[in-house]
Amino acid sequence: MTMKPVSRLTVIGLGLIGGSFALALKKAYPTLKVCAVDLNSEALAWAQSSGLADRVSDDIEQGVRDAELIVVAAPVMAMPAIFKALARYAPKSAAITDVGSTRQVVEAAARTYLGEAFTRYVPVHPIAGSAASGVAAARADLFAGAKAILTPHERMDERFKALVSCAWRDVGVNLCEMSAFEHDEIFASASHLPHLAAFALVKSVAQSPDGEKKLDNAGTGFRDTTRIAGSNARMWRDICESNKEAISKAVAAYREELACMQACLDAEKWDELEALFERASVCRRAMNDASVSKK
Amino acid sequence: MTMKPVSRLTVIGLGLIGGSFALALKKAYPTLKVCAVDLNSEALAWAQSSGLADRVSDDIEQGVRDAELIVVAAPVMAMPAIFKALARYAPKSAAITDVGSTRQVVEAAARTYLGEAFTRYVPVHPIAGSAASGVAAARADLFAGAKAILTPHERMDERFKALVSCAWRDVGVNLCEMSAFEHDEIFASASHLPHLAAFALVKSVAQSPDGEKKLDNAGTGFRDTTRIAGSNARMWRDICESNKEAISKAVAAYREELACMQACLDAEKWDELEALFERASVCRRAMNDASVSKK
Repeated sequence: MTMKPVSRLTVIGLGLIGGSFALALKKAYPTLKVCAVDLNSEALAWAQSSGLADRVSDDIEQGVRDAELIVVAAPVMAMPAIFKALARYAPKSAAITDVGSTRQVVEAAARTYLGEAFTRYVPVHPIAGSAASGVAAARADLFAGAKAILTPHERMDERFKALVSCAWRDVGVNLCEMSAFEHDEIFASASHLPHLAAFALVKSVAQSPDGEKKLDNAGTGFRDTTRIAGSNARMWRDICESNKEAISKAVAAYREELACMQACLDAEKWDELEALFERASVCRRAMNDASVSKK
Repeated sequence: MTMKPVSRLTVIGLGLIGGSFALALKKAYPTLKVCAVDLNSEALAWAQSSGLADRVSDDIEQGVRDAELIVVAAPVMAMPAIFKALARYAPKSAAITDVGSTRQVVEAAARTYLGEAFTRYVPVHPIAGSAASGVAAARADLFAGAKAILTPHERMDERFKALVSCAWRDVGVNLCEMSAFEHDEIFASASHLPHLAAFALVKSVAQSPDGEKKLDNAGTGFRDTTRIAGSNARMWRDICESNKEAISKAVAAYREELACMQACLDAEKWDELEALFERASVCRRAMNDASVSKK
């Protein structure tokens, strides 16, 4: 299907993801006009002076007035208020997408607050990120080759689904579909749990006796394992709040596994411990291979 | 102090670390002759054909016959037998160093088995590694800028300490000293715990419902956090066995921290959870800064 590319994009929430989406879509559609909406005037000034945005506003009504595609890239907990404003001010022809890391809570908010615009709401979660955050870290190639998950809902209009899918593919993602429930279960393990594991690892070492000396002697293993512990605490609080049950289940399973390993250690069951390590090591190396062969 | 550089090195145990040490010391001392000792004939053939080793042997007696410096880079659990052989066959003038990841157990084995050669034993643990393993992954620059820990013992001869320190500095490490006990406490947290955390993370996700789909959707966060779970299971079994008490204590503290986080999740104490994340995030970002400012 050929489709007329979007010519006016509004990004609400100007961070790494929103900014990178704007840069990437401008690269794909050179005549695209971008409007950036945020409450942070510094981010807006940066977006305008760098050419990322053609127009900026701290007001949703102003920002979306002629949008054909609206990307909500704000923190998950800010989305209900944004959806309320969009129900009122988004043009009737505008497609709406969001990039929230959890889906069931955001979809429920969209369902409640978007009103009839809910049929034009096509949520997509791109699996992309970087150690850096903020719009100044935005990159046109952030999504190149990344996976993105579209979680369809029963009232989604197929034409808008096609339009939004096309824009996401044009910024470089490989789109796949799953239900919002399945998404949240999967990412509780594949993304949210590793963040909690990394936060806990840094904190437990830092507060232990000689914590500073331990951190000072950390090699690449500790550094890699905890890189994502440098993430934004507020954002991860929101993600936890919005995917509480699934994350709690994943953390419980992880704690159970650690308990098994410690039991082996304490009982000196070395063969058993090695078997646990070996299963993990085989799985992990298989992931590396898969990732290499995809390239 | 100026010192005549070592002219004959024997590496016992030809993996990533032993191989990289040989390459790096050859680069520093162009006339250096290297003998490699291993039971793996493939590794020996590779070392000889690539020029890493001038001479190879599967026999310690043959391998060390004219060595001035002997580096034991074998698995920790193989060291007692190697020390026994060195007590018998190492030249009386040879310095002995090892690269084991744990120190108290290895030092105890050296004390028991090296005999009078114990005074020439100067253990150094380089904090370097890579996702790859095996001699084929060896790199002359593996130690450039890395930290290395020398753990002195009371019978160490100062001349040999100076000779070994000089060789390690010449392969590029920043040498520091601490006791074997302190070393093991620190690395239980800074290195051993992250490996167990990563093994457990991969295993708990892989064996959960839809495990394969979860791994398939893992982004860079999961991949970074679990990179070291691809490590050699046998080697990590040995490290656990040789630093059991300290690792068990570190795992217990980590499980306690995860329990706190899950308690916050389950009781919806979001402010408290955010405060835990924030403390970890601040610590982790401080590590990045420290590492950047050192370069």
